[in-house]
Amino acid sequence: VSDPTRPSVQVACLQLSPKIAELADNCAMSTAAISAATADGAGLIVVPELVTSGYMLESPAEARSVAITPDHQVFADWAAAAGEAVVVGGFCELGDDGLVYNSAAVVDTDGVLAVYRKVHLWDGEKRVFTAGSVAPPVLATRVGSLGVLICYDLEFPEMTRGLALAGAEIIAVPTNWPLLNRPDGERPPELVIARAAARVNRVFIACCDRAGVERGQDWTKGTAIVDAGGWVIAETKKNDAGIPVASATIDPTQAWDKAISPVNDLFLDRRISVYAQFEGLMDAEGPA
Amino acid sequence: VSDPTRPSVQVACLQLSPKIAELADNCAMSTAAISAATADGAGLIVVPELVTSGYMLESPAEARSVAITPDHQVFADWAAAAGEAVVVGGFCELGDDGLVYNSAAVVDTDGVLAVYRKVHLWDGEKRVFTAGSVAPPVLATRVGSLGVLICYDLEFPEMTRGLALAGAEIIAVPTNWPLLNRPDGERPPELVIARAAARVNRVFIACCDRAGVERGQDWTKGTAIVDAGGWVIAETKKNDAGIPVASATIDPTQAWDKAISPVNDLFLDRRISVYAQFEGLMDAEGPA
Repeated sequence: VSDPTRPSVQVACLQLSPKIAELADNCAMSTAAISAATADGAGLIVVPELVTSGYMLESPAEARSVAITPDHQVFADWAAAAGEAVVVGGFCELGDDGLVYNSAAVVDTDGVLAVYRKVHLWDGEKRVFTAGSVAPPVLATRVGSLGVLICYDLEFPEMTRGLALAGAEIIAVPTNWPLLNRPDGERPPELVIARAAARVNRVFIACCDRAGVERGQDWTKGTAIVDAGGWVIAETKKNDAGIPVASATIDPTQAWDKAISPVNDLFLDRRISVYAQFEGLMDAEGPA
Repeated sequence: VSDPTRPSVQVACLQLSPKIAELADNCAMSTAAISAATADGAGLIVVPELVTSGYMLESPAEARSVAITPDHQVFADWAAAAGEAVVVGGFCELGDDGLVYNSAAVVDTDGVLAVYRKVHLWDGEKRVFTAGSVAPPVLATRVGSLGVLICYDLEFPEMTRGLALAGAEIIAVPTNWPLLNRPDGERPPELVIARAAARVNRVFIACCDRAGVERGQDWTKGTAIVDAGGWVIAETKKNDAGIPVASATIDPTQAWDKAISPVNDLFLDRRISVYAQFEGLMDAEGPA
């Protein structure tokens, strides 16, 4: 099934290179890139995790020095640059509770639609950020039903399953994937996880990684758009401004159809009563 | 972590070609192949789904005509052929309740250690088999802590997560993957799912597909062994008898270590209280 009354969506993931702790520069750079993507026809624009702050923050104090609230000017700038498009991007958030989070904002011309705080913190982030404790929302946006995860969140199948069951057509994933060794010829392992999550849930997943070596850390630069069958339909090509962009036009309503044979449906085939038999082991936070 | 007192295990997945509804031939063929694998040093031997019966059974009556119980001679033959090895293999089971199941047996020299009945039935199987309603066990075997899934079961991340949380080091997956179209240069999509499941749970997964066109159905022939990092460490090569075998030596105790950074652990990092927020949507069998 698909809905001919719903237009297709051009998704663009902008593999930007923020500079560590250079808030003003990063805000201007990301806004300019969003503006260019809008001009190129994008309807959904994803930028990296922590694009306003950079990633390799050395201390809670440094993170706090570049932490912003959702009423910061950059989000109004993103909204203005985006025109009719929807933007998902990562930022270092100063919460109304005074704590600092690794967050993502969903922005359109109406402003900030939602802020999601990363639930699963990776490595040094645990020293710098407070983990979110609220599941990501599924938002009805002008480009479709949109879920958000940040980087390591993607590696927990509970999260992608939860968003898909909640109706997400597209999951946008601002990310900073530290470069790992991998066998020659293999795609990044994070992308294997994204592809499986897309396929077993029949959702689109748009992963926006970053570039630019930062305090000695290199990145996978694995930005990719994955379709609802789990196939990679776009990797990066440099645009006119020299930014690596992954771009693909998708029909998000394909995610409505969970049928994969005349009598199989990925959701209707779930056997909750069987999974519950694992529950004694899964109730605790941590291993059995 | 790994345990130097536990020996490594040679895993062999035998991509056999059973003949439809030829029970006696299939029993003899699978037993001979197990015997050869044992001679080649295998400690864990996996053979395909429904290896005793073939897959393309046309009717419940045809399935019943080749259905066997766990006290059938073939399992004693497998045990004798296996010597010190453990065998996991699929068969068409006549249950003590009179129903017919798509099952897998775990066999060693002590006999049949467990029978698992496929929970998620694929396509035409729904006309022929009754779905199992019991979660797969995790068995303490002489080669390690072993979980079992059958084919389409693997595509439900709840199943792999559940087995890993229950302590499985290795998940053996007898399968019959019908050949699907895929982009040039891509591995089978089922293997992408297996790799992600292995990586996010840090377990070994041994998938044993079948060969041999049967009633017009061709197979993916995607047999592979995946390590706890999600990397494919073995695909098939023909053995002296011309059987495609995937073989790798593994240290199952690597699956004990869920740590993937100095402060990250794939199980301890799980946020059950967040996943529970999806629960209203996940309680029902079927979509929200």
